[in-house]
Amino acid sequence: MDLREIKDPSFLKGMKTSELNQLAKEIRQFIIENVSHTGGHLSSNLGVVELTIALHYVFNAPEDKIFFDVGHQCYTHKILTGRASEFSTLRKYKGISGFQKRKESDYDCFEAGHSSTSLSAALGMAVARDLDYKDYEIVPVIGDGALLSGMSFEALNQIGYEKRRMIIIFNDNKMSISGNVGALSKSFGRLRSSKGYTNLKGDVKNYLRSQKYGEALIAGIHNFKDGIKHQVIDSGIFKEFNLEYYGPIDGHNIAEMIRVLETAKKEDGPCVIHMVTTKGKGYQFAENDVTGKWHGVGPFNKNDGRMLSSTPQGYASGSEIVARKIEEMMIANEDIVAITPAMKQGSALEHVFAHYPERSFDCGIAEEHAMTFAAGLALNGKHPFLAIYSTFMQRAYDQLNHDICRMDLPLVLGIDRAGLVGADGETHHGVFDVGLMEPLPNIIIAQGKDAPEMRALLEYAFTQKHPFALRFARQTVAIEPDENRKITSTDWEYLVKCENPDAVILSYGFDVKKISQTVKDNNLNYSVVNCRFLKPFDEKILNEVLEGEAPVYIYECDMHKGGFGVNILDYANSIGICKKIVTTGIPDQYVEQGSTSQLREQLSLDLPAFFRKIEEDKK
Amino acid sequence: MDLREIKDPSFLKGMKTSELNQLAKEIRQFIIENVSHTGGHLSSNLGVVELTIALHYVFNAPEDKIFFDVGHQCYTHKILTGRASEFSTLRKYKGISGFQKRKESDYDCFEAGHSSTSLSAALGMAVARDLDYKDYEIVPVIGDGALLSGMSFEALNQIGYEKRRMIIIFNDNKMSISGNVGALSKSFGRLRSSKGYTNLKGDVKNYLRSQKYGEALIAGIHNFKDGIKHQVIDSGIFKEFNLEYYGPIDGHNIAEMIRVLETAKKEDGPCVIHMVTTKGKGYQFAENDVTGKWHGVGPFNKNDGRMLSSTPQGYASGSEIVARKIEEMMIANEDIVAITPAMKQGSALEHVFAHYPERSFDCGIAEEHAMTFAAGLALNGKHPFLAIYSTFMQRAYDQLNHDICRMDLPLVLGIDRAGLVGADGETHHGVFDVGLMEPLPNIIIAQGKDAPEMRALLEYAFTQKHPFALRFARQTVAIEPDENRKITSTDWEYLVKCENPDAVILSYGFDVKKISQTVKDNNLNYSVVNCRFLKPFDEKILNEVLEGEAPVYIYECDMHKGGFGVNILDYANSIGICKKIVTTGIPDQYVEQGSTSQLREQLSLDLPAFFRKIEEDKK
Repeated sequence: MDLREIKDPSFLKGMKTSELNQLAKEIRQFIIENVSHTGGHLSSNLGVVELTIALHYVFNAPEDKIFFDVGHQCYTHKILTGRASEFSTLRKYKGISGFQKRKESDYDCFEAGHSSTSLSAALGMAVARDLDYKDYEIVPVIGDGALLSGMSFEALNQIGYEKRRMIIIFNDNKMSISGNVGALSKSFGRLRSSKGYTNLKGDVKNYLRSQKYGEALIAGIHNFKDGIKHQVIDSGIFKEFNLEYYGPIDGHNIAEMIRVLETAKKEDGPCVIHMVTTKGKGYQFAENDVTGKWHGVGPFNKNDGRMLSSTPQGYASGSEIVARKIEEMMIANEDIVAITPAMKQGSALEHVFAHYPERSFDCGIAEEHAMTFAAGLALNGKHPFLAIYSTFMQRAYDQLNHDICRMDLPLVLGIDRAGLVGADGETHHGVFDVGLMEPLPNIIIAQGKDAPEMRALLEYAFTQKHPFALRFARQTVAIEPDENRKITSTDWEYLVKCENPDAVILSYGFDVKKISQTVKDNNLNYSVVNCRFLKPFDEKILNEVLEGEAPVYIYECDMHKGGFGVNILDYANSIGICKKIVTTGIPDQYVEQGSTSQLREQLSLDLPAFFRKIEEDKK
Repeated sequence: MDLREIKDPSFLKGMKTSELNQLAKEIRQFIIENVSHTGGHLSSNLGVVELTIALHYVFNAPEDKIFFDVGHQCYTHKILTGRASEFSTLRKYKGISGFQKRKESDYDCFEAGHSSTSLSAALGMAVARDLDYKDYEIVPVIGDGALLSGMSFEALNQIGYEKRRMIIIFNDNKMSISGNVGALSKSFGRLRSSKGYTNLKGDVKNYLRSQKYGEALIAGIHNFKDGIKHQVIDSGIFKEFNLEYYGPIDGHNIAEMIRVLETAKKEDGPCVIHMVTTKGKGYQFAENDVTGKWHGVGPFNKNDGRMLSSTPQGYASGSEIVARKIEEMMIANEDIVAITPAMKQGSALEHVFAHYPERSFDCGIAEEHAMTFAAGLALNGKHPFLAIYSTFMQRAYDQLNHDICRMDLPLVLGIDRAGLVGADGETHHGVFDVGLMEPLPNIIIAQGKDAPEMRALLEYAFTQKHPFALRFARQTVAIEPDENRKITSTDWEYLVKCENPDAVILSYGFDVKKISQTVKDNNLNYSVVNCRFLKPFDEKILNEVLEGEAPVYIYECDMHKGGFGVNILDYANSIGICKKIVTTGIPDQYVEQGSTSQLREQLSLDLPAFFRKIEEDKK
């Protein structure tokens, strides 16, 4: 069928199993075809094609609330709810999102981007439903990686206590983002390898029903704590949370899933349905992937699996620059321990893990734990390096504040994806971290203008006995040789210094290098300062700049509020300077998806606009 | 014995059980006596007297790392490590802390204040130890409330995977802070009511050892997954995390605890020892407490349990003012749902829970979940009220950002204990939240100058379809009648307006009322503006103030960085105003414990200093 003609999922109800299976095939091909052009989350979406069809077959969205934890596995859901024709715009500026978005469709009843929020939201929805004496179903879909994050446990604890009706779909693909870690993975493995519990449970019930007093016995079983029920059904950790468990179910067998979902609808409390799926199902390259390479991809050749946009020779991502330097430093400095919260591949740490397995730790999607785990290491003499995306660091704010900065421990944070990130949009832009970290005592915050400076800053970071955050953007940069660049203090540097400048520009990161290049190329009479330390400030240079006659222009592409510019204004005020200081930064709004250049332009934060502003002011 | 003469815990090693029991009695009396004078955490400390003695008997601190989750149950630990003589200064300015503090003693190897960090830190320490080929023991002590917070699960998941040697003391007092909630409480209850598993386990081992092939069988049992071992030992949730479990043990039986701890020391991986203790043990009033009233107390009469400092007639705490108003509003507004993360008593919500049980929810120590639970409620038509201490809100920053502000949902946050809190010190001052919230789009932030204004702001909050945060300090205020005060927009107000003022003072909260009173009482020629909305600003009044000739003085007692004053500077700069603006706020440091007036004085943030500064500037 032409998937583009689907308006809503009602057409599913009349379909036979064979037709549903055929539909799954077509959707899978559609996803592979489209993502090969646009890029996007591939493996997770291929894993839940049949599952999503079964859900929309059994439930009546949008009355029933079907939603996906994180949300990046919602492509089939988008297709079945009338959005197939928009897939060419997936993750593009003004196009459809790679996540669920309420403004896109009534079928998107929740939206996320960060992991492990679905169960908490589901309980809130269930309580609201019950207070309104309504009857709709609530069906959160959560993966095994997300289920292992702390927030999910907090939710399960209350869900098993409140006993509100909901059907939790546990989508177990044995993978998380790049291979699962943790003790519970083993527990899940035990459940997976158990067979036929659902049938057994059904059989027992049927058998009992056929007997005298059978119904009473079934009721009795429900109240039994460790007796017969436990003998019959191994519910793993779900039993401890007082939840009904169905599983394991083949998450690619639509007929079986429909049968179990229909049964689960009769439950009067919360239940967990354990669906075992295969990440990347139906696309050989993704299915064989064990590193997570096919979790999120750019455009690729669907026939040979070759990625179309490769990093040019001599260039590398910020993550790679940092990871290589860390790896190199780990040779000489035996105190360095590398940590990632489930982002080994994203943070380019595969080589670090391969070469230093005893000093490399993947904590899973557990940013809070990862931060305090680092604190424990630092307390007992190690110098941990925690690679963490800016946006995910938000999850560990309190731990960074109390367990790291308050105890003033030596931890080097590699804050990846700082600034606008592009296609992942609202939930993934790393634009809040400067404002989060600036008010924290003891921390040093830095950002390098190019690869050699990033490496020099890392060298410097490990000489410090304080928390040290090195931010870097999601961008490829020239690798460049080091040429003995060294950083020995928290000073700034002039990249361009004019005698009597018309303006002084303050900025940081890759942007400041571009700015200085533009100034040089166009022979502009502007001084340019590389403020590579966002905290503390280089007061010598800053005083000089503020006391000079030229107006000051600050360029930053992070949130304006709480950001670098505002802190400069505060410093200027504290030393009694009243002068023209022009700040930039992202205004008080969430930023949508799009290429970073499109977004900068939309926000009037592109460099040409910045230079135009300075020129106009001169008039 | 004279507890004040204890220098370190080495004296314990030579003591007999009867002497240890006698010591426990003396320590218990000492704690009751001292806390009755100083105030402090009582119930939790009385619960772990024997446990702490047993730990210091078996382990060799400070080489072995004994530490307490949260840390407020460390009084016996402090006594045994030579700090009894300082107990008269407990929680006082420059006195000893109610928590563990590294600067106080080498025996305090970790410090906290917020819950559920101990297991993550323990794993970090264990990895550091193993990398250094050292052999010391790591012994985190964690309560049942703290164990149910998400971060603990994240840690357990990695601990069970890494299999590093550590002895986790699970201090199960069945209470958390004010009564435990959640499904796992039931699971723990099952474990508690099981008996003799430890003995059984020991017996089985001994029996097997006496048999031919016994040792091999014991080894076999270790590898058995669901077989004999499971039949022999019910390890509850700990089994799922792949952890050895010992318990339940009577946490007041020193001899039994010592025996089990000695056995546990022989384990080569992580194990959990389930100690069942009684909160408030040995002090009748605390032991009978079911509401959590004796968790943290002020000075009291130890004979009749009467609290010595009662709130004067006609006054109430900020928490009470807010809770009463919420309760009143819940009559007319059926959409209001009240939520607390384990702070029912602290947030004075007992009446709300009693009168609206179906619309009141205690989520346990689970701030992250609580925030997104509220999001779910709001998404499906409810208007949740989340009572949360400023310091604990730090734990839910990401959820507030993504799940509330980004979806622009109507949630009213009651941000309790905003500003300096006093005796709890560094980890509990609520001074970071303004900086955290200011950069969040869509949120409205308010703080009332007195009780009627707090109530009017709450009324206004529930008319808004946006996130709304109402901050209030830890302080008692006059209840006062409402007198038709109404707030219908986000405007500010002049409390004093002079024709040609020598200065304009901007401030918020109870402080601004005190400031205006001082100005009136002394006939000072200063205008005073009540900036009751910290976001958005009342641009009409603010423009007027900034465009006027008088210098502007901003008074705030929250973190300076990211705070109100800095945002005023930014606004002034954005409209091209260069004038004298004097900001205050807490400088870039953590603030110690002490009365709030002592701390304000130390920080030069007392009101007399503020007025002196204005006077001096006039000269």
